[in-house]
Amino acid sequence: MNRQVLLARRPEGIPQAEHFRIEESAVPTPGPGQVVVRNEWLSVEPAMRGWVNAAANYSQPVAIGEVMRSFAAGRVASSNHPEWPVGSPVTGMFGWQDYALVDGRAIERRIDEADLPLSLALGVLGINGVTAHYGLLEVGQPGHGETVVVSTAAGAVGSCVGQIAKLLGCRTVGIAGGATKRQMCLERFGFDAAVDYKASDFQERLAEACAGGVDIYYDNTAGPISDAVMPHLNTGARIVVCGTASVASWDPLPNGPRVERHMLTKRARMQGFVIFDHAGYYAGARAKLAQWVREGKLQYEEDILDGIEHAPDAIAGLYRGENLGKRLIRL
Amino acid sequence: MNRQVLLARRPEGIPQAEHFRIEESAVPTPGPGQVVVRNEWLSVEPAMRGWVNAAANYSQPVAIGEVMRSFAAGRVASSNHPEWPVGSPVTGMFGWQDYALVDGRAIERRIDEADLPLSLALGVLGINGVTAHYGLLEVGQPGHGETVVVSTAAGAVGSCVGQIAKLLGCRTVGIAGGATKRQMCLERFGFDAAVDYKASDFQERLAEACAGGVDIYYDNTAGPISDAVMPHLNTGARIVVCGTASVASWDPLPNGPRVERHMLTKRARMQGFVIFDHAGYYAGARAKLAQWVREGKLQYEEDILDGIEHAPDAIAGLYRGENLGKRLIRL
Repeated sequence: MNRQVLLARRPEGIPQAEHFRIEESAVPTPGPGQVVVRNEWLSVEPAMRGWVNAAANYSQPVAIGEVMRSFAAGRVASSNHPEWPVGSPVTGMFGWQDYALVDGRAIERRIDEADLPLSLALGVLGINGVTAHYGLLEVGQPGHGETVVVSTAAGAVGSCVGQIAKLLGCRTVGIAGGATKRQMCLERFGFDAAVDYKASDFQERLAEACAGGVDIYYDNTAGPISDAVMPHLNTGARIVVCGTASVASWDPLPNGPRVERHMLTKRARMQGFVIFDHAGYYAGARAKLAQWVREGKLQYEEDILDGIEHAPDAIAGLYRGENLGKRLIRL
Repeated sequence: MNRQVLLARRPEGIPQAEHFRIEESAVPTPGPGQVVVRNEWLSVEPAMRGWVNAAANYSQPVAIGEVMRSFAAGRVASSNHPEWPVGSPVTGMFGWQDYALVDGRAIERRIDEADLPLSLALGVLGINGVTAHYGLLEVGQPGHGETVVVSTAAGAVGSCVGQIAKLLGCRTVGIAGGATKRQMCLERFGFDAAVDYKASDFQERLAEACAGGVDIYYDNTAGPISDAVMPHLNTGARIVVCGTASVASWDPLPNGPRVERHMLTKRARMQGFVIFDHAGYYAGARAKLAQWVREGKLQYEEDILDGIEHAPDAIAGLYRGENLGKRLIRL
């Protein structure tokens, strides 16, 4: 049978377990040009919140009753497409389900890092790693010796941003929630400094860690964490707007301290990006990331939930901050 | 005698008449390498608010008891510098006073547009015109056919931004306060549409004027006017942060609707700049602006106050919105 996680109701804000339901159906059979992929790993991303919300976003929302959109990695189980023989390791937007019936052209890529775990295609060698690489290098444009601050620094994107920045000769400051994640930033991901935003002395510790000012703020959270970083911007600072994980709902727009005066007096630049606009960038970035992983220069952490029954609550869990590293569902 | 407008007390927010006092002293005599400039025109800029505030800014604040910092235009009255003979028309940071004793090197430039009024060196051929040109072209990077929205559109910078954008083939929407300024935008400065932010139907009129979305928002105000523009941004929009005229005080930071989600989903870029960083840009931009003025393609409006006794209240008046065009004090 094929277990599928369907969007049952449209959430406002963060999708909870009750917004999904799991249904079983027959394993599909590929039609002309189609393949069936047996998913082995399903991805869980903060961005999936936006994929189910009706509010204006960068993609059409998942329809009610549809399989939840997600990245997944697996192997071709049956094929009617000459380029995708049975057994091919592949990744793409296969959705939260055991078996995905997809057009051969809809497969994102063959996973050709055969020496590395398949799951990396969803994390450090997938959308997270490529997002970190693009946002830091192309939007942030770091210079040697600059200070890079990252929010959700222990997460899949943040940990990668910090390590790439360090490899480029930057000083890195991670912001994460709780003592465990803070330690992980320092010990596992090599941040020069790490600050716990849940601690009562967050503002003071951040000011200490950013005593020389902030040249790049890689923003995965928005909200009060970002507000705390803004006063420390150096002249010419860049703010990379990658995600808004700390804000539960954008409808209506929440209020916060205005940024315009910081932007003006610091000659700062704030820029948002959506990695899906830059598909041509993926392969080159992935090759560099894979090389760093092989050389032991790029560490990653996985937070694995065993069984598709954990999927419905998995996004909400991310927003509760309960994961340590890239959240994955193993089938 | 030399009448000088001195900063008497440090204002919080917008400087009012009572923050200045006028003193008389002897006309100075130039020492070695110095000249005395007889000012004929004094400039009044919204940015002068920032020059007297103690809060973090892009320049050191004017000290208590010092002559108020300002641009001025005049002629050399006495000289001990071979490059600056008596009678030379000059402009620079000569301050709010009849006579300025300055080092020859402190003169910004000789005003060589002899066919045009001297006062233009403070407006359309001065900091306002150059700011409009740099911000629009270098920060905003307009493309042919794009929609450019400008706040304080009837003002010295805004009117210039709108006209340059139009000359570059953009569609222009001006935002100004009151029916008179709105008409001025349409009839004198050639905006394709103009919206009165003081009108009760501002939001609806703005939505109509921006039905095709906003590619560049040239922001001279910040605050609620900017908040109203943000929902209309097109994908890839640029926000040029040039001034914050609508916000009376930045200490403490006022709250407003958060911008991060707009920045992310619209892949937008917000960038602040301070024209004083780009002195090398002035001459080239000024040459183009002067040519447009001579060809009748670039209109300007001056709001002239006669007599230095009007200087103390002149900045506050700008923020009350009482000027029509570039505010100047004629001596």
